[in-house]
Amino acid sequence: MKMERGIIPRKIKGFRDIDASLNELRQHIIRSASAVYRKYGFEHWDTPVLEYADALGKYMPDEDTVDQGVYNFRNPEEEPVAGTDGNELRDADAKAIMEHHALALRYDLTAPLARVYAERLWQDVKRKQIMETNAPLFRRFQYGPVYRYELKLMPGRFREFWQLDFDTVGTNDVAADAEACIILAEAMEAIGLNRGTYVVKVNNRKVLKGFLASIGVTGDQEEQGVLRVIDKLDKIGWSDVEAELGTGRTDSSGAAVPGMNLHAEAIGRIMRFLRSATGVSSRKSVLGELETAVAGNNLGMEGIAELKNMDALWAALGFDETRIIFDPTLMRGMAYYTGPVFEVESLLTFKDEKGKERKVGSICGGGRYDGLVEKLLGLKVPATGASIGVDRLAELLRMVDPAGVTAKGPVMIAFFDDDLQTQYYRIAAELRQAGIDVEVYCGFFKGFRKMNKQMAYADAKNCPAVILLGADEAAKGVATVKNLKLGKELALTTFDKKEWNAQVQKEVPLGNLVEYILGLPGMK
Amino acid sequence: MKMERGIIPRKIKGFRDIDASLNELRQHIIRSASAVYRKYGFEHWDTPVLEYADALGKYMPDEDTVDQGVYNFRNPEEEPVAGTDGNELRDADAKAIMEHHALALRYDLTAPLARVYAERLWQDVKRKQIMETNAPLFRRFQYGPVYRYELKLMPGRFREFWQLDFDTVGTNDVAADAEACIILAEAMEAIGLNRGTYVVKVNNRKVLKGFLASIGVTGDQEEQGVLRVIDKLDKIGWSDVEAELGTGRTDSSGAAVPGMNLHAEAIGRIMRFLRSATGVSSRKSVLGELETAVAGNNLGMEGIAELKNMDALWAALGFDETRIIFDPTLMRGMAYYTGPVFEVESLLTFKDEKGKERKVGSICGGGRYDGLVEKLLGLKVPATGASIGVDRLAELLRMVDPAGVTAKGPVMIAFFDDDLQTQYYRIAAELRQAGIDVEVYCGFFKGFRKMNKQMAYADAKNCPAVILLGADEAAKGVATVKNLKLGKELALTTFDKKEWNAQVQKEVPLGNLVEYILGLPGMK
Repeated sequence: MKMERGIIPRKIKGFRDIDASLNELRQHIIRSASAVYRKYGFEHWDTPVLEYADALGKYMPDEDTVDQGVYNFRNPEEEPVAGTDGNELRDADAKAIMEHHALALRYDLTAPLARVYAERLWQDVKRKQIMETNAPLFRRFQYGPVYRYELKLMPGRFREFWQLDFDTVGTNDVAADAEACIILAEAMEAIGLNRGTYVVKVNNRKVLKGFLASIGVTGDQEEQGVLRVIDKLDKIGWSDVEAELGTGRTDSSGAAVPGMNLHAEAIGRIMRFLRSATGVSSRKSVLGELETAVAGNNLGMEGIAELKNMDALWAALGFDETRIIFDPTLMRGMAYYTGPVFEVESLLTFKDEKGKERKVGSICGGGRYDGLVEKLLGLKVPATGASIGVDRLAELLRMVDPAGVTAKGPVMIAFFDDDLQTQYYRIAAELRQAGIDVEVYCGFFKGFRKMNKQMAYADAKNCPAVILLGADEAAKGVATVKNLKLGKELALTTFDKKEWNAQVQKEVPLGNLVEYILGLPGMK
Repeated sequence: MKMERGIIPRKIKGFRDIDASLNELRQHIIRSASAVYRKYGFEHWDTPVLEYADALGKYMPDEDTVDQGVYNFRNPEEEPVAGTDGNELRDADAKAIMEHHALALRYDLTAPLARVYAERLWQDVKRKQIMETNAPLFRRFQYGPVYRYELKLMPGRFREFWQLDFDTVGTNDVAADAEACIILAEAMEAIGLNRGTYVVKVNNRKVLKGFLASIGVTGDQEEQGVLRVIDKLDKIGWSDVEAELGTGRTDSSGAAVPGMNLHAEAIGRIMRFLRSATGVSSRKSVLGELETAVAGNNLGMEGIAELKNMDALWAALGFDETRIIFDPTLMRGMAYYTGPVFEVESLLTFKDEKGKERKVGSICGGGRYDGLVEKLLGLKVPATGASIGVDRLAELLRMVDPAGVTAKGPVMIAFFDDDLQTQYYRIAAELRQAGIDVEVYCGFFKGFRKMNKQMAYADAKNCPAVILLGADEAAKGVATVKNLKLGKELALTTFDKKEWNAQVQKEVPLGNLVEYILGLPGMK
């Protein structure tokens, strides 16, 4: 067998091309949400797709090493290795130690933000010119692709996907967290999700930690274990969570799922804590339940005080429980969150391929991360922010309104006659002057410009109309305009070809062409 | 000496962050040019930043291997190796051969376009359902970052930079090339370059090749050598080009530059050919000169006929020599061009750091590449297109109008008094309702919100105005509005602090705040 390798035109698994319609949606989301971000004083920044792996840190969700889940490779260039003081490390002969540094494709937009902020201040911090209490405020938004090397690629998940983040670095005021939730709600509505079809859910890591401490669950490992079980609530339900907090359970495949082996009283209190918001519509009542649950634990009370402040600001600004609720079961995956966490959940459902009703679920997430910048800068700089999952939201909009997501094509001028080519381009220029997008069909060899192929092209491109101009028409000073949009509609009800033609095709004097096209439905 | 490595917050060499002002410019360029592209029927597509290296091909400018100048690495995932028929290759035991495929960061947007087009048709071509004469037409535009691993990084050059391309795949009609030049001219003016400050220069590889053949320069190597020398014309000037076509020369450092050793008559004819357009303003006259130069060579005459067709279309549409010219010296680096090539040159000059007047030079380039898709698809599909160097153009706009490129900040509400926090957010909401971007200052710990720091923040962020509201003002139902824009202007002429204050600060009743802010210059 001959072993000749082929070059197959293909994409990397987990990557995809974005066609005009999906791009239209993506841009709509970016435009709408960015305008809201700007309205709140966030400015637009951009950072490289590629970064030094060490400067990105190890903040992946559920990962404790940057190597897992991240695309990384060695820089082709050798560079000096720096010590903790920033100066080059030297070997015994005082020669600078050189290395191909590890590079990584960014896995989110938060780690690069921490790098931007830390890079700007690093020298000043070393010189003690910047301290905790005068660390500058920085509010920016950013969008673009991020990369995750997911070993098991689930359907609908991608290894390259877009995020749209806004963050405030340099504030410990939970007003910034409260504002972030408001911004998320406004962004959702700007994007086109009706009020009532989404909800911003809010929790506080401090309340959780304080509550767990109050029932004797302390230590990072036990705490993380409990949080991980709770995080599965949406997937496995109340009784399985209860089982996993206790002696464990057997899953549907018969495999044993080990439990946390907490004692019955602790489990009871955790379940009650988690249910504090079940059937409770008012944020104030949830706060009351939580206050009982944390039983005076200091950290827990601090967290509740923060949520109270946030609630007061929302109430004053008219953001009631139809838009923002407290949810004690909300965990968020990121290990770096330190205070309030929030998530936007779409309340819309869809039917999956088996006809089963399914929830869309989480479309944005965020929270406070007071320790992230410190890891790079050695200075505690509190921060909070959130991220919209652009591609996930685009899929959602596609489900909500499949017809509204097709990119509108240009008006097409069909190519009939070589001798009329200049006139086709002249007519196109005239229409463009009036603000109309126009394409003169120019596919392949002139001799092969078959009319059925041209019409199929216009159809696939969602062109609203096609202008037909042959020698006879040119002599009469008219063109035939075919209304493709109307044609598609009539095709469903009109089966008489002649009648269809009479309605869909009009002969229009060349002098009236601009006016006629502008008058077609949907053209303005 | 202790060898502890530091984690220094830093960017990779040759990469950069884009701040709000530069982003504003970048987005302005993308918005303006995209609207022109759409106007001509191009639809917006996007492709992954990361691709299989083999599917990107070897089309780097002046490079004959994709490994040079490209960031590439091995996929962490093992995948089967495919043969030329697309099926998996198997070893002696019939086991699929697995490999970590080579991945690359895209080095331009043209190679991914060829991949997109080829991927869509590959199966149909194998089944002979698609042939040369029915290869579909595809017109798309795309923008985003591309990556070049430049070994020597010149000042102002980056390893990550943005391009903004439009291409037509599936046409051999030079009307598409003529249209591309028109689109480039319109895009430049939409972006804000005045007519007369740029020119679209056009040449044709066929004319060049035909001419060289007519004087006995044939064979790829000799031909490429001559083209490379001519390409240096802008840099080294006429006499050095003449020397390098002959016996060579000595450069300013004293190093010997070898020559092509052409005979004197050939050199004379090349120099005359290159000078055909010098001092000749009309495209028609240049065509006449070229016709004499190619002396009946078939390929050359074919190229001239193409240029004639393009000239006729431009003339009919009013694009004269103030916008589009023929330039026989134009080469373009890409080896893959096969017909017309074009370039936009900025005619603006700037003073460099030594005060020397310099030209900005090339800001866009493109041309016809009839062989590119064939390399992936095995089917000759002609194509043409062009690319705007977004970052280069942004630098140009920055030089042309340094004041016009600062991102406008939000109106800022200063933070005076904890008890007024809710009111600050209420006022902000009211102003936003009226379409004003507003930020309530939320920097760091409330107790550390020093007024001078807040004003410096507003200043750095280019805020047009700051609203000051303390307990006294709140009791009176007024706020003080500081007009920062006016303040900056007056600071140049008014040295009396009291007078400056009187002009810059106004007490405004809270009920009139929206109206007052909207009335400030530059707010609408």
